[in-house]
Amino acid sequence: MRGGATFLGGALGGTAVTLSGTAALGAPEHTPEHTPGRAPAADQAGRATVAFRGPRQPGVDTTPQGFATFLALDLAGGTDREALVRLMRIWTDDAERLMSGRPGLTDTEPELAAVPARLTVTVGYGSAVFTAAALAHRAPSWLRPLPSFGVDRLEENWSGGDLLLQVCADDPVTVSHAVRVLVRQARTFARPRWLQRGFRHSPGTVPPGTTWRNPMGQVDGTGNIDPTAEPHLVWHEDDGSGWLAGGTSVVVRRIAMDLDGWDEVDRTGRENTIGRRLSDGAPLTGSDEHDEPDLEATGPNGFGVIDAAAHVRRSRTDDPGQRFLRRPYGYDDGPGDSGLVFVTYQADVDRQFLPVQRRLDELDLLNEWTTPIGSAVFAVPPGAGPDEYLGQALLEG
Amino acid sequence: MRGGATFLGGALGGTAVTLSGTAALGAPEHTPEHTPGRAPAADQAGRATVAFRGPRQPGVDTTPQGFATFLALDLAGGTDREALVRLMRIWTDDAERLMSGRPGLTDTEPELAAVPARLTVTVGYGSAVFTAAALAHRAPSWLRPLPSFGVDRLEENWSGGDLLLQVCADDPVTVSHAVRVLVRQARTFARPRWLQRGFRHSPGTVPPGTTWRNPMGQVDGTGNIDPTAEPHLVWHEDDGSGWLAGGTSVVVRRIAMDLDGWDEVDRTGRENTIGRRLSDGAPLTGSDEHDEPDLEATGPNGFGVIDAAAHVRRSRTDDPGQRFLRRPYGYDDGPGDSGLVFVTYQADVDRQFLPVQRRLDELDLLNEWTTPIGSAVFAVPPGAGPDEYLGQALLEG
Ligand code: HEM
Ligand code: HEM
Repeated sequence: MRGGATFLGGALGGTAVTLSGTAALGAPEHTPEHTPGRAPAADQAGRATVAFRGPRQPGVDTTPQGFATFLALDLAGGTDREALVRLMRIWTDDAERLMSGRPGLTDTEPELAAVPARLTVTVGYGSAVFTAAALAHRAPSWLRPLPSFGVDRLEENWSGGDLLLQVCADDPVTVSHAVRVLVRQARTFARPRWLQRGFRHSPGTVPPGTTWRNPMGQVDGTGNIDPTAEPHLVWHEDDGSGWLAGGTSVVVRRIAMDLDGWDEVDRTGRENTIGRRLSDGAPLTGSDEHDEPDLEATGPNGFGVIDAAAHVRRSRTDDPGQRFLRRPYGYDDGPGDSGLVFVTYQADVDRQFLPVQRRLDELDLLNEWTTPIGSAVFAVPPGAGPDEYLGQALLEG
Repeated sequence: MRGGATFLGGALGGTAVTLSGTAALGAPEHTPEHTPGRAPAADQAGRATVAFRGPRQPGVDTTPQGFATFLALDLAGGTDREALVRLMRIWTDDAERLMSGRPGLTDTEPELAAVPARLTVTVGYGSAVFTAAALAHRAPSWLRPLPSFGVDRLEENWSGGDLLLQVCADDPVTVSHAVRVLVRQARTFARPRWLQRGFRHSPGTVPPGTTWRNPMGQVDGTGNIDPTAEPHLVWHEDDGSGWLAGGTSVVVRRIAMDLDGWDEVDRTGRENTIGRRLSDGAPLTGSDEHDEPDLEATGPNGFGVIDAAAHVRRSRTDDPGQRFLRRPYGYDDGPGDSGLVFVTYQADVDRQFLPVQRRLDELDLLNEWTTPIGSAVFAVPPGAGPDEYLGQALLEG
């Protein structure tokens, strides 16, 4: 996605991908060399690792891996600040191990940990974490369920949650194993609430830099922000509350697609819905995927070439602060049960995400075929520095 | 799996993998060259195609792709022989197109067809197909539900079915799209009954020839048969009924794993359960994965080194005819919902599969942590030759 932009070199340092030898691959050497945050050459897809430690958590500005599991958990009664610290210490240790291709500390299937495949583990906090830790006053003001929208048909079992585990990798075996290790380790602290699995392409099946196509067949991601160029859109800066500097927020919405209905629309109708061509994702006013859409251009009839209610027009804004990083995955749980696990990261949900979601709720041609059925918001604490555990600045602050 | 054996060159010709240029990859040349049936180099994983036409259907002796969907359908009332012929003509045409990286005939998302990634489409018939076609007398004698076993806890919604669509590829987007096209095309003839999705590794994440590990962490596939060396174990030979020559049978069992219980067993106990080491899959009597297990070897206490109830001992037999091709996939539908989509192919279910399943039902240490929750049997008609459609020898015979 994003035309192969690299995500290294932001003010706080992006996530780095390294290739590490693992027992399973019989290549014991450890290359400390950092390569850009892009997907590595496909024959090394299994060995590539993303750095765990750093001022920011991985899995946000990491070029999307092929597979993702989003798992929300609810805290068990009695999980207080001390228990949260214990859980965070455990998850920190396990995430670091697994992301480097080593088994978790109490891993009973250590061999399944041998293929890191750019594994990232990202942890998010719902507001219950702050309450449980008696730190409600330190919760970001935007940390609450999104207001309900006219388009929503939310289901309880895809919504909310006290904790989020986001686990992504280029191999589904790796994702499955990591989720299992982390959930088992959390057993006494929290229990799974919902789980969503998403996919993009397997490594090596499309050329690097190809923008992903979602289950509707649309080129999806072209107009995304570049978090390296505009890190302030994603990462929280030190705003006085302190602990969230280097953190972000994540919105996870499950959006069902009516693919049968979509199939009945002709190609022109489908292209007008987005305002971009299906063949290559170019705006209807341009010829190349990365041409800027011209929202002023009018056709022979005097109407906009890009429809007044087209998704690209409605999701755009003149306010450069109303932008955020999209990192969606497709889901397909069988005929009639497909859609997007629509995932965004932004420094401030209220200022960046909400106005756009509101505009789309008011008017967006796409709404006829898409229905949000799940919604959750989490604060993503900063990354763990050397010897730190995830959330330390909050829980000990 | 199978130590990288190739599957070309059997009496009737195995499935061949070719690399074809597709629009999406900007490489228009069509290489007619056949490479062995192994997975191609990972950077070509998207472009590789498996031949559709031939005396045998693909997806059986094809080296397992990373992703599989098994979809059972039930015939709509009124689907007679003529309707079945129409459906088979449509599926034949679409399977051939999709497997070569071209859109289905009425494909509304043609761009999603551009990455074949070794796509295979394999079609199976339940006994209802024979009844609907007024050909009940030509159904193989073994085409019926398996008898029930003591270990079974079968659920209706994972069992039975009139038709099977097996769709495998090295890219999940490709599988998802192909299933959608084929199901939509069948709309007036049949409706989905159950769908099971399985995974192995993504292409390029483990070295070619690595035996897969299942969700229990075991090396799974070492003792499998080589269908090139012993094609008669898989492929039906001309037995007088005629139409099934070049065909086979498929058993699809959904086997749930109690991973939490399995985790509590120590490593020795887990290795004794199978009779092989967890680290590398070597038999407990050997040192290399591909060493033959020595079932006679006894330890210092006089008992067998490989337990009397170990899975490898119980699943083996002195009768060389009681063997079959296993092609299982893992499934993981969330915490507590993992297991195998256990899939086998054999010329004759009754003679080859049943005796082994019976023995395992009587005694197998593995039974403590595994429970069959779904079961289905299908006849897999021969492949479609040039200008033929799938099932033609039956439906016009
Ligand atoms: C199933 C639901 C959705 C689908 C299929 C979808 C699809 C697309 C597509 C195809 C594009 C054009 C290519 C691109 O720039 O990525 C796009 C752009 C965009 N979408 Fe969506 N979208 C969905 C939901 C949403 C939602 C819920 C939001 C925000 C709340 C959103 C915000 C955006 C933004 C900000 C852009 C970029 C606009 C620009 O600056 O050019 N989308 N989407
Ligand atoms: C969840 C259920 C199962 C698991 C986890 C499992 C796992 C294994 C493992 C780890 C091996 C040793 C490595 C290998 O040769 O592949 C094996 C071998 C084998 N299994 Fe299973 N198995 C399961 C169910 C079954 C069933 C239901 C059957 C037949 C009805 C079966 C038939 C065999 C056979 C024939 C072998 C090869 C024995 C030999 O010749 O060495 N398995 N299985």
